[in-house]
Amino acid sequence: MKTVAFIMFLLASPLMADDIRSTGDLGLVIERASGSLVVIDRSERTAIGRVEGLGDLSHASMTYSPDERFAYIFARDGGLSKVDILTQTLVARTVQAGNSIGGAISDDGRLIAVSNYEPGGVKVFDADTLDLVADIPAAGKTIGLVDVPGRRFAWAVWDTGEVFLGDFSGPEPDIKMIGNAGKNPYDAVLTDDAHTYLVGLFGEKGVAAFDLWEDAPKPTRFLQDYGKTSEDLPVYKMPHLQGWAFSSGQFALPAVGQHEVLWVNRDTLTENARTAVHGQPVFIIAQPASPYVWVNFATPLNDTVQVVDSRSHQVVATLTPGKAVLHMEFAPRGAEVWISSRDDNRVLIYDTKSREKLAEIEAASPSGIFFTARAHQPGL
Amino acid sequence: MKTVAFIMFLLASPLMADDIRSTGDLGLVIERASGSLVVIDRSERTAIGRVEGLGDLSHASMTYSPDERFAYIFARDGGLSKVDILTQTLVARTVQAGNSIGGAISDDGRLIAVSNYEPGGVKVFDADTLDLVADIPAAGKTIGLVDVPGRRFAWAVWDTGEVFLGDFSGPEPDIKMIGNAGKNPYDAVLTDDAHTYLVGLFGEKGVAAFDLWEDAPKPTRFLQDYGKTSEDLPVYKMPHLQGWAFSSGQFALPAVGQHEVLWVNRDTLTENARTAVHGQPVFIIAQPASPYVWVNFATPLNDTVQVVDSRSHQVVATLTPGKAVLHMEFAPRGAEVWISSRDDNRVLIYDTKSREKLAEIEAASPSGIFFTARAHQPGL
Repeated sequence: MKTVAFIMFLLASPLMADDIRSTGDLGLVIERASGSLVVIDRSERTAIGRVEGLGDLSHASMTYSPDERFAYIFARDGGLSKVDILTQTLVARTVQAGNSIGGAISDDGRLIAVSNYEPGGVKVFDADTLDLVADIPAAGKTIGLVDVPGRRFAWAVWDTGEVFLGDFSGPEPDIKMIGNAGKNPYDAVLTDDAHTYLVGLFGEKGVAAFDLWEDAPKPTRFLQDYGKTSEDLPVYKMPHLQGWAFSSGQFALPAVGQHEVLWVNRDTLTENARTAVHGQPVFIIAQPASPYVWVNFATPLNDTVQVVDSRSHQVVATLTPGKAVLHMEFAPRGAEVWISSRDDNRVLIYDTKSREKLAEIEAASPSGIFFTARAHQPGL
Repeated sequence: MKTVAFIMFLLASPLMADDIRSTGDLGLVIERASGSLVVIDRSERTAIGRVEGLGDLSHASMTYSPDERFAYIFARDGGLSKVDILTQTLVARTVQAGNSIGGAISDDGRLIAVSNYEPGGVKVFDADTLDLVADIPAAGKTIGLVDVPGRRFAWAVWDTGEVFLGDFSGPEPDIKMIGNAGKNPYDAVLTDDAHTYLVGLFGEKGVAAFDLWEDAPKPTRFLQDYGKTSEDLPVYKMPHLQGWAFSSGQFALPAVGQHEVLWVNRDTLTENARTAVHGQPVFIIAQPASPYVWVNFATPLNDTVQVVDSRSHQVVATLTPGKAVLHMEFAPRGAEVWISSRDDNRVLIYDTKSREKLAEIEAASPSGIFFTARAHQPGL
């Protein structure tokens, strides 16, 4: 890799001061149809490059190294790619499974874990080389993989409901089954303080919570009437639990198949309130340093974004930024939100105070937007 | 500045791949006696350079630009310095007052505000050029300056107890007095969600809280028995309110003049518990993604650091890392803590899981340690 970068410099002439660049305000946008990434500069509100050849990015996510130099992209086709955001090059790629669903980086930045559907299980790679360092089989599809402090990861198994906590800090992995979440867990999320691992269920009602600060975490079930029912509207898209917002002592979570946001007291795990919204929520994301959450919706109502106040639980703004809004990413201190509008081939940048559009950036069928500040957040 | 960087490149030959460097894992350590900064690489656990000529850093703090390229250093002698962490150069410096106490950067990275003792007041500078853009007088020394979302800042006045909220998003500054905190506010802090501005008092007992999510914030007093009393031990050093930790729905705050940590319920502002500790707390800092806070102490008991569990409120570890421990900074996801030991001329790096020392870095009389990840946190 050093050799590659060195050759690139020799070819680039004359070398300009702009060749040194800090990484705190950079990011990547997934171009889902073309298997490529747009490199973005948040301060300049512009695209500064593109990286291609990442495979099937139709349901992709990524995570960043602690130094913000590298992004690890988890593609639906089982590909794990490592991209250098400064040289804007694909530096390593391995197709490590037939179908993968996401991944995470350990708190010390040394290990990348990927959760797989085909075959099920978790594979763990050296973050520098992408060499396989552990292959943890499972009795089915693994979902909801997150990093846990102390070079650990947690995940759940769709087919069995089992939840695992894997410790990779010693010479051999230490994998413990910490309980059964329930029937067909479909996604899971870790709170921003790495305290509570929340597992959503598809096969039955309710949510399972594990207190990962305990020496022996065990499942607590809550929201027993939460989930899919036959009386509901058809579920156009399963909501992302990554979209659970943690705001003002509450969780805001998407009702499955309903046009509602549910508010849960973080301490008591009881329902506080429900907010009627425009459609079936997909992502509910907290605007940093504010009382607000922003919500986007499943097709066919995905041209709209709503802003809800976590104090009153009222919708305070309804925007129609573009066609097929797939994702939203906030500047880490909350001044802006970047919104991907897939069918407009645009990323739209909104001021969060005026809620007016500030700028647009071209991107081909954009989906996920990922700023490098994620490198510093547990569970992302 | 571009010219400066360009000349540096022409002089450096041959250009190595290492000349491009991401900034997510960099940081600066204040060398208080020599007016210099050590540039540190968190991943490599090493010093990678030094920047000199920053004036009197005996009580200095700093903040980072959103792109992590620049640090703004607030020195006790009234100097405001701008340092390029990539080229490791001092790019601008202005002595803007006779005695300053700290500063902040606006949420969009455009403005730097400095709170001054001599003369009192707040000066606001363009973050690019350090040109003065606003000069807000005050009836005394200003303290506790913090950034508030929406290109705003909050501060308090020692002499009068007045608290101000300044909005710099329009063509002219809009400065509002939002209430009186009480007698002689000595420091203030904003919670990590930018919700509550907490003001500590020296002239009377109690703490004032302002809800900055309200349209018209007003003071609420709590902990009416909190503060300095004549019966107390001598106060060797006023604790830093920046050291207030926000963990598990609680604030952990240093008792003034007492060997105690106080725990306050974040919602009700009532006292939960007290923890007897080794000395008078100076900084109480939450270990990210954990139930723990780490505490250091005022002279003469400043060779010790204690770890307290926010659930049980018990001391769970007592370390003696070195002589004159002045500051602690956590890796943003919590795996390591970096501790400055002034009289050992060392920064000590501890693993937070094993609580064992991993490495040491030489630094002359080190005090504050600041990682670039602070660029992404409101109120820092």
